[in-house]
Amino acid sequence: MIIPIVIGMDIGGTNADFAFIDLKGNILSKHSIPTSEFETANSLVMIVKDIAEKTIDKLKGRYVIRGIGIGAPNGNFYRGTIEYAPNMKWKGIIPLAQYFKQAFGVPCYLTNDANAAAIGEMMFGRAKNIKDFIMITLGTGLGSGIVANGNLIYGHDGFAGELGHVIVKENGRQCGCGRKGCLETYASVTGIKRTIVRMLEANHVRSELEGVSFNQLSGKMIEKAALNGDSVALDAFKFTGNVLGKALANAVAFSSPQLIVLFGGLAQSGDLIVKPTKEAMEKHLLRIYKSKVPIIISGLKGNEAALLGAAALVWKELGVAKD
Amino acid sequence: MIIPIVIGMDIGGTNADFAFIDLKGNILSKHSIPTSEFETANSLVMIVKDIAEKTIDKLKGRYVIRGIGIGAPNGNFYRGTIEYAPNMKWKGIIPLAQYFKQAFGVPCYLTNDANAAAIGEMMFGRAKNIKDFIMITLGTGLGSGIVANGNLIYGHDGFAGELGHVIVKENGRQCGCGRKGCLETYASVTGIKRTIVRMLEANHVRSELEGVSFNQLSGKMIEKAALNGDSVALDAFKFTGNVLGKALANAVAFSSPQLIVLFGGLAQSGDLIVKPTKEAMEKHLLRIYKSKVPIIISGLKGNEAALLGAAALVWKELGVAKD
Repeated sequence: MIIPIVIGMDIGGTNADFAFIDLKGNILSKHSIPTSEFETANSLVMIVKDIAEKTIDKLKGRYVIRGIGIGAPNGNFYRGTIEYAPNMKWKGIIPLAQYFKQAFGVPCYLTNDANAAAIGEMMFGRAKNIKDFIMITLGTGLGSGIVANGNLIYGHDGFAGELGHVIVKENGRQCGCGRKGCLETYASVTGIKRTIVRMLEANHVRSELEGVSFNQLSGKMIEKAALNGDSVALDAFKFTGNVLGKALANAVAFSSPQLIVLFGGLAQSGDLIVKPTKEAMEKHLLRIYKSKVPIIISGLKGNEAALLGAAALVWKELGVAKD
Repeated sequence: MIIPIVIGMDIGGTNADFAFIDLKGNILSKHSIPTSEFETANSLVMIVKDIAEKTIDKLKGRYVIRGIGIGAPNGNFYRGTIEYAPNMKWKGIIPLAQYFKQAFGVPCYLTNDANAAAIGEMMFGRAKNIKDFIMITLGTGLGSGIVANGNLIYGHDGFAGELGHVIVKENGRQCGCGRKGCLETYASVTGIKRTIVRMLEANHVRSELEGVSFNQLSGKMIEKAALNGDSVALDAFKFTGNVLGKALANAVAFSSPQLIVLFGGLAQSGDLIVKPTKEAMEKHLLRIYKSKVPIIISGLKGNEAALLGAAALVWKELGVAKD
């Protein structure tokens, strides 16, 4: 018996993760490669193809790849492209879906990484049966997937849901997109790292993070310091949550969601980030929304929402999804 | 032959307008009453009923009212209520659809005034066949109707699209909603009036608006002064457009619309408001959206988009709309 599977892929500023996934959402095999290793998009395609062939061999030929689903920053669903992704080494417009389609000979669907996570959360996570929610991914950057009436909002051009590039501070921090003050320059793993560095520079407070360089610094380190009671780390989480919460209050006025789901590296810090975010959001919400919009952490571990979402996208487009 | 008609109604901070409208969108009779005349919502219902009876009599009994559609600030589609509308005399939660239903014995549907305008623009105006657009109404306040995939976004709670209450300036102008710095405190007829008063207070420039009180000041007066070359009026339009354009750049990052339609009192000033708005929006847009999102003035005159939209809402809900 031949079992159809798909490749679900999550390309981020730091890692390219992918998995072989069946129709029920079972992950048969999972892989991760640092994105920095790929000078070109095609070199990624080649490595994935190589791994895919070996994996299928190992699975003894009972599996056949029916399609490839990709979540990527600045991913365009309509065109299958990554366009001007600020945090990626590949510049300009990358027709990645076409590359994969040519290499594998099967359909390839691509969307914004946060949209993929939203689809995953809706099918397998904590947003099941929820028709209106916002998924926020807090990784290298900040991504968002907006679901209204049970459907992802792609927008006219396929680029809806770029909340990471809402400008929250006029002449604020320089963003990779070329503008200043974008939300993701504050609310993301990179954003909180910048906040730590700024706080260490501006204040005379002892911190266990003083001896760590910006490049060495990680979300996990900041979380650990905060849990140790480090006041700089604690203040950085408060500051980050405050910026994010205010931006979410504005986002709620846009789509009136039932739920906001946080996902990604920074979300794994749990209450350290959720509590100040919720406080700032509630404080800034218009009265009609107050106390109505919970902020929760994704129910899917690691990057599984993105991988499962990318896989679900394929099953859906192939017309074999169960919903 | 009996001809079915509906009442389409547009309740604003200043006027309650309504019209008797047939299935083709023909306006048979149109009425307007200052909202300030109604101490209670029920007193409005009674006057509309009185006028409706007289109108039907005049039309010689060939017409029958099949339903009532209402666009109102803070209107909730799911509950048929106006809830805590900042610019209205009626406070708290007003079950207006129920009042009308009881008085007329026909179904009544209520939504946000800007949502009604968006439906009207989509059916009869310049957004025909456009599946992703944002309608912005610049009246006493700022309302918005967001259409994605051809459908209005109502959100979980029926309150989506409150862009007038996106906070654009921390500790900015006091808003009727109780918070500070909301978009509508800058970008609306009231907003530009506040800007004029502020500019007259802060600067030593001669202006033809110096002798006019805040209450006497109108959007039309400011437009006229600007067309006369009055530098304060011109600066006020530039300032207003700048604030609005920046907020629209953020809105585009949310839903990636094909088009933004401006409507209402301030929109009637045409290029005076559109030009600075477009300039500021383009300047602040993320690269992937640049030069892709036109800002246009509504194709429907006066408040017809709102009235026709409210009527279209009824036909749609009654299942007799043609689409």
